[in-house]
Amino acid sequence: MPHLVILYTKNLDAETDCDALCRALAEVMVALRDEDGQPVFPTGGVRVLAYPAAHAAVADGQRDYAFVYLNLRMARGRSAEVKQRTGAALLAAARAHLAPLFAQRYLGLTLQIDEGQEVFDAKHSTIHPLFRKE
Amino acid sequence: MPHLVILYTKNLDAETDCDALCRALAEVMVALRDEDGQPVFPTGGVRVLAYPAAHAAVADGQRDYAFVYLNLRMARGRSAEVKQRTGAALLAAARAHLAPLFAQRYLGLTLQIDEGQEVFDAKHSTIHPLFRKE
Amino acid sequence: MPHLVILYTKNLDAETDCDALCRALAEVMVALRDEDGQPVFPTGGVRVLAYPAAHAAVADGQRDYAFVYLNLRMARGRSAEVKQRTGAALLAAARAHLAPLFAQRYLGLTLQIDEGQEVFDAKHSTIHPLFRKE
Repeated sequence: MPHLVILYTKNLDAETDCDALCRALAEVMVALRDEDGQPVFPTGGVRVLAYPAAHAAVADGQRDYAFVYLNLRMARGRSAEVKQRTGAALLAAARAHLAPLFAQRYLGLTLQIDEGQEVFDAKHSTIHPLFRKE
Repeated sequence: MPHLVILYTKNLDAETDCDALCRALAEVMVALRDEDGQPVFPTGGVRVLAYPAAHAAVADGQRDYAFVYLNLRMARGRSAEVKQRTGAALLAAARAHLAPLFAQRYLGLTLQIDEGQEVFDAKHSTIHPLFRKE
Repeated sequence: MPHLVILYTKNLDAETDCDALCRALAEVMVALRDEDGQPVFPTGGVRVLAYPAAHAAVADGQRDYAFVYLNLRMARGRSAEVKQRTGAALLAAARAHLAPLFAQRYLGLTLQIDEGQEVFDAKHSTIHPLFRKE
């Protein structure tokens, strides 16, 4: 955690660099600070995974629509201010990356943040230790 | 919103037209009406995204099983009647599309509807304005 | 239900057998027993679906990181003991499968179990009847 999963229509793969979008959003997550100036997310826990849909249908299907859905799952218990700040920063980064497309095509972007309500949670990582000294 | 995500075993890609399944389910969502005859979902917000799994394991793995999971995430607060009507209509459309397969192979279909419990929600779209006049 | 969905960075596809990982996790789910010695999950309902991400960004992006996220969605209402037992068994199986990779690369593994809070749930299956005699 946190995990940002991007589901999108595959027509975007030919029109924008989705690796760059993932990296831009990861940078936002790494850079986020809370009210006390502390990192919101541990660097070693940031992951962004993007999935073009093999098949899709959007709205009435009468035009060449594209769609991007961003879903961030974060741990429970962060402040309302942190949630708002996180959402606003991710939305701004996604809109900036997609601005050339918004200017020229039918495109929908939705961002939702969920707090995980998991009943079991475990991890094992050789990535986190790299960032322990932060 | 609403988002209908389909996760399925990739053996189905050779046996049925998953683009047509997505379109059939989107049509159901566009056509749905509530108790007052109003659209349940805005046309511009309907999206269906389907993902064959690169790798999968179903049940005991001893036969050529196939599986389709439909998950609809809708906004909070709709009536029990609307939820029931939505689920029944989507299930009927999926069963109709998959009927030839149900008649001849091992196949499981599950449909679940979740109400989003998001703590942040934002969107930007050049699709919605097309349907504002509805 | 239950559904175990695996989201992971695609660099792992060249380094480990993800079909075998799915099968190993399905076997764990089929074999699980509750406090009374009864199966936790019906064999015909076990599905594991794995998705390599087409695009991804992990942590600071400065090394060749890999990541595996396991999310199990199970029906509401099972005991705390069953949830703990299920999580521990799946984590152990995933760690065993990935042990050679943990020994040699940067890799993160996270497992979370959610209880479904669905507002509509329906299924149709020609798989379940095969296992009714269990």
